[in-house]
Amino acid sequence: MIIILKKNPEEKQLTNLMAWLNSMNISIHPTEGQTHTILGLVGDTSHVDIDLLRALDIVEDVKRVQEPYKNANRKFHEDDTIVKVGDTQVGGDVFSVIAGPCSIETEEQICEVAEAVKRSGATMLRGGAFKPRTSPYAFQGLRGHGLELLLKAKKLTGLPVVTEIMDLSQLSLFDEVDVIQVGARNMQNFELLKELGHTGKPILIKRGLSSTLQELLMSAEYVMAGGNDNVILCERGIRTFETATRNTLDLSCVPMLKKLTHLPVIIDPSHATGISWMVKPMAMAATACGADGLMIEVHNDPKKALCDGAQSLTPAAFDDVMQAVNAILPHAYKMPKEA
Amino acid sequence: MIIILKKNPEEKQLTNLMAWLNSMNISIHPTEGQTHTILGLVGDTSHVDIDLLRALDIVEDVKRVQEPYKNANRKFHEDDTIVKVGDTQVGGDVFSVIAGPCSIETEEQICEVAEAVKRSGATMLRGGAFKPRTSPYAFQGLRGHGLELLLKAKKLTGLPVVTEIMDLSQLSLFDEVDVIQVGARNMQNFELLKELGHTGKPILIKRGLSSTLQELLMSAEYVMAGGNDNVILCERGIRTFETATRNTLDLSCVPMLKKLTHLPVIIDPSHATGISWMVKPMAMAATACGADGLMIEVHNDPKKALCDGAQSLTPAAFDDVMQAVNAILPHAYKMPKEA
Amino acid sequence: MIIILKKNPEEKQLTNLMAWLNSMNISIHPTEGQTHTILGLVGDTSHVDIDLLRALDIVEDVKRVQEPYKNANRKFHEDDTIVKVGDTQVGGDVFSVIAGPCSIETEEQICEVAEAVKRSGATMLRGGAFKPRTSPYAFQGLRGHGLELLLKAKKLTGLPVVTEIMDLSQLSLFDEVDVIQVGARNMQNFELLKELGHTGKPILIKRGLSSTLQELLMSAEYVMAGGNDNVILCERGIRTFETATRNTLDLSCVPMLKKLTHLPVIIDPSHATGISWMVKPMAMAATACGADGLMIEVHNDPKKALCDGAQSLTPAAFDDVMQAVNAILPHAYKMPKEA
Amino acid sequence: MIIILKKNPEEKQLTNLMAWLNSMNISIHPTEGQTHTILGLVGDTSHVDIDLLRALDIVEDVKRVQEPYKNANRKFHEDDTIVKVGDTQVGGDVFSVIAGPCSIETEEQICEVAEAVKRSGATMLRGGAFKPRTSPYAFQGLRGHGLELLLKAKKLTGLPVVTEIMDLSQLSLFDEVDVIQVGARNMQNFELLKELGHTGKPILIKRGLSSTLQELLMSAEYVMAGGNDNVILCERGIRTFETATRNTLDLSCVPMLKKLTHLPVIIDPSHATGISWMVKPMAMAATACGADGLMIEVHNDPKKALCDGAQSLTPAAFDDVMQAVNAILPHAYKMPKEA
Repeated sequence: MIIILKKNPEEKQLTNLMAWLNSMNISIHPTEGQTHTILGLVGDTSHVDIDLLRALDIVEDVKRVQEPYKNANRKFHEDDTIVKVGDTQVGGDVFSVIAGPCSIETEEQICEVAEAVKRSGATMLRGGAFKPRTSPYAFQGLRGHGLELLLKAKKLTGLPVVTEIMDLSQLSLFDEVDVIQVGARNMQNFELLKELGHTGKPILIKRGLSSTLQELLMSAEYVMAGGNDNVILCERGIRTFETATRNTLDLSCVPMLKKLTHLPVIIDPSHATGISWMVKPMAMAATACGADGLMIEVHNDPKKALCDGAQSLTPAAFDDVMQAVNAILPHAYKMPKEA
Repeated sequence: MIIILKKNPEEKQLTNLMAWLNSMNISIHPTEGQTHTILGLVGDTSHVDIDLLRALDIVEDVKRVQEPYKNANRKFHEDDTIVKVGDTQVGGDVFSVIAGPCSIETEEQICEVAEAVKRSGATMLRGGAFKPRTSPYAFQGLRGHGLELLLKAKKLTGLPVVTEIMDLSQLSLFDEVDVIQVGARNMQNFELLKELGHTGKPILIKRGLSSTLQELLMSAEYVMAGGNDNVILCERGIRTFETATRNTLDLSCVPMLKKLTHLPVIIDPSHATGISWMVKPMAMAATACGADGLMIEVHNDPKKALCDGAQSLTPAAFDDVMQAVNAILPHAYKMPKEA
Repeated sequence: MIIILKKNPEEKQLTNLMAWLNSMNISIHPTEGQTHTILGLVGDTSHVDIDLLRALDIVEDVKRVQEPYKNANRKFHEDDTIVKVGDTQVGGDVFSVIAGPCSIETEEQICEVAEAVKRSGATMLRGGAFKPRTSPYAFQGLRGHGLELLLKAKKLTGLPVVTEIMDLSQLSLFDEVDVIQVGARNMQNFELLKELGHTGKPILIKRGLSSTLQELLMSAEYVMAGGNDNVILCERGIRTFETATRNTLDLSCVPMLKKLTHLPVIIDPSHATGISWMVKPMAMAATACGADGLMIEVHNDPKKALCDGAQSLTPAAFDDVMQAVNAILPHAYKMPKEA
Repeated sequence: MIIILKKNPEEKQLTNLMAWLNSMNISIHPTEGQTHTILGLVGDTSHVDIDLLRALDIVEDVKRVQEPYKNANRKFHEDDTIVKVGDTQVGGDVFSVIAGPCSIETEEQICEVAEAVKRSGATMLRGGAFKPRTSPYAFQGLRGHGLELLLKAKKLTGLPVVTEIMDLSQLSLFDEVDVIQVGARNMQNFELLKELGHTGKPILIKRGLSSTLQELLMSAEYVMAGGNDNVILCERGIRTFETATRNTLDLSCVPMLKKLTHLPVIIDPSHATGISWMVKPMAMAATACGADGLMIEVHNDPKKALCDGAQSLTPAAFDDVMQAVNAILPHAYKMPKEA
């Protein structure tokens, strides 16, 4: 950590600051520049409150040298983490494809989709029971009953299931869920993250709409600090000024995250673009730059769908995506051991 | 709601779409343009899922004409809402100033600050007991014990208190809290919002870092849909590319929100700028453009503070802000009845 | 174009508005909704000033149905545009790779890089003579002399050359330049775009840091409106809140632009990420999702470089990128005729 | 400047780097941390290319301690700059109000507006002759003829005039223009800025849509490096995700710029909001937080205006804004000498 002092710092405040730092076993190496004095701090600065330092009258700026996350940090854990999920895994040599409908609607729907995506090569089934909806007047999901239907589809196909939790109070219902998803809007619901750190279950954390990669890793750190290392990161588009797509898919995050952390990284092109025909090219791009997997919305309920075009992505279209992705996969980017 | 169809829409899909809309008592007024056909929908479209429509093969785009929120909408509720809080109120003729420390630390600290801000004219006391911190290693607040200290300061000064809830499970501890704050990171924690809709208590909702005004109003709508109209909106800076300030304070939201909604709007310049000397000018600007109040961090604990400069804003500096604000107040912008 | 009127519009203003629209041969189809009246406009609305309409007292909002660009619009020009450049082309069956140093420094440097990138399969040579630099104290490029050196490298290798123009006054120096580049900061330098529309030369337009795809297409439209259809679009990263990379590479723009326009689209992963090791994975991703080519910085001047690590991407690293890209290429996404 | 080295830097590269820095008379103060070595650089680092340093293999990050601008820097020029314009000035004790139409249309129009805004207290007249328009099909301004009309209005009223230049080639027409405006889209048109640095005329630079304050100051530095210190900065809204207003007015920039620089800062609420009724509250807020002036669009051409509501802001509405601003002005924020 580096502290940049203001010109002519008040003596007494400087003495206080240095005494306080020393009391935390941090040694201080000053450099006198022409217009500023810089203090280089040596020691464990992870508990130093950077905002507090910045608030001091004599301090112009504070800059971190070390990342504020440890458990998630590649520097302290060189090998890729592999998250075991039922008979499959996320990370390592397996390319994970998590597919299924946005919302679970009926047993028939979720089971049909499950069988279809399994045939096409999906490794896990997704389906929403608790739905975060911007409007209180929109369908909020089948909730507990939705989970039951999802578990029937799991039983039928053997596919592990991934579904979103929206509140701590729902946790007891997730016993047989294989991967618990934390949605983008809950990425900084710290009470929820802390509790999930005690479950031991694989946790898939979606990056918040306007969260930096460092904030995403700090949220992973919350889960890992509780003793649960089974964390999967998922990019699903960030909010920018561009309106041609629903969000902006930040694919650069794939190699960057894999450099910063040992945790697996998957991409959700369905939510990122919000446009079903764009899922295919963006899934291909995500595969090419080294993602560990994909999360894709597949829908199939012709009897209930309001008209033929309503499916976000049909099982047939998903099968086409899988073939395209599989053709890219052998040529995909592999992170060298030292980037 | 307006549906813009693609060129030469498939006949059967169009028939299905129109039958489906008719089944919801929505009448359809088509306009044939040179390159597109437009369907104007007349009727209650608030339950129509706009994303579903957009996903249809034959639809190029869908545009809302009406706002998706009702209870919060100024169009259906012309008069300003006044939220009663203890002996004071937010909105109407009272300019609310909510002041206090970021974190509650000791009884002495919170009580001293409470007395000081009361003397300077604050109408309510704030203080954090449950603290949302980006890092799991940072101080997480005194939690339940912090609430107890806050209530002592309330008793001592008579100031109503505002404090943040982070999870539904904490709700039972908030009985004597006057205003429950929903933090920016929880603005779309819909389960929490729903439950707060049943409390009847004043709820202060902070705008999310990257939330649009419409999303903020939809979150207010969640609370109001549960029967609780005592909602206060608070802008505290949005995330942009600019790094000179911690966030970008969006003051245009004051007149815009007051046009869109009847709910009171307050501004938090402390979090928006992250820089204590900027609180004064931005508080003055917020007052000038018609905000209903301010939320300001004031800190005073010289014995524990690590050195003299550590206070985010001292009681003396807060007093100076109050005088500047009070000088602006008689000249502040008043929204005309019809903007 | 759709006009949404305010409730109870003033009669005289409405009559004026309708007369004015009729005077432009636009017919008006009103739909009376419950809370609003909508006017559907039929006719050529491309000359109607949307901001003027929005400013009217009686108008709540105006929404465009048609894109404001014509020459660049895929709807009016179904086939892909192929831009001929010397013996090669951009678009169609050729995958273009434009490689070379950021700045032209010496004859030796530019010629060595030119030969190296040609060997690895580059189709064109880039090199900066006029350099847009944020600081007036930074090296501003060799300017006219740089262009001379670039043309020597062209002569030596036969590679067509791409280089940036910064001001109209430089245009006379660009006679033998094959592709004139308009930089991101000049994307909306409309006087420059207009003049380039009269040159007949291929123009490569880089998307501005915070420009929407529609604005990029409007800039292309400026060139095309002057009679020059040889426009190449280039994405080079947009500005967002994320700071882990210099900019955020918006790869979704590849399929989206190819749907909106018939112009070729290339990607510059060097500027987008600002990090040389990330060029390879992002070049692979760009290729996978259907880009028509890449623009990559390659540097090689060991004698002048300040130490061994200074090269943005060495010729050897570029060769490695080319092999990876070529392996992806046969499996890359192809836009179906009707997306 | 601080260089953070990677763990175990390659010896030869480190020696090269240090020799190169020493050759520029920069002395190096290393601090060995637990995981990183930090080099504190002492000396004039303004000519060191930070991107070059970042590109080195052995460097993890580089952080600037000093601002990269000098002439514009408050640290080296404590007193406020006052820009003299005709008989008036920008900065110091004068609150400047620059008012007038977006586009100059006729002599009658510009003269009438000029007289009206003068009566209400405007200190300068604005009017667009060369208009940067997103669409090549939109009205591009009266250009040279527009300037002539503007100068007639100047003669009539005695108000100094402000108008935008779009290209260097237009410069000869600006002899009698009092303040040359550089538009937001040209803020980083460095060739133009350099040339304006040689004119000696007051230059008003509008902040680019997605430009940081530091970039704005670097553009001012371009003009000042040419010997022209008469620079006025203007904030006119930045691009964010919010769509309720055209841009997001960043009023925090007023105190922040006044801390960073001695140059005067004015606010354009018309472009920032794009909504005429919002000009008044935002002008009031800008005044309250210490801006040196305002730039406001006023339009008045009832005979040509397409209907009564078409004026962006009528002279009567402008007069109302002026009264509101004048009531705030005596109570406005004054930057203390040492913030």
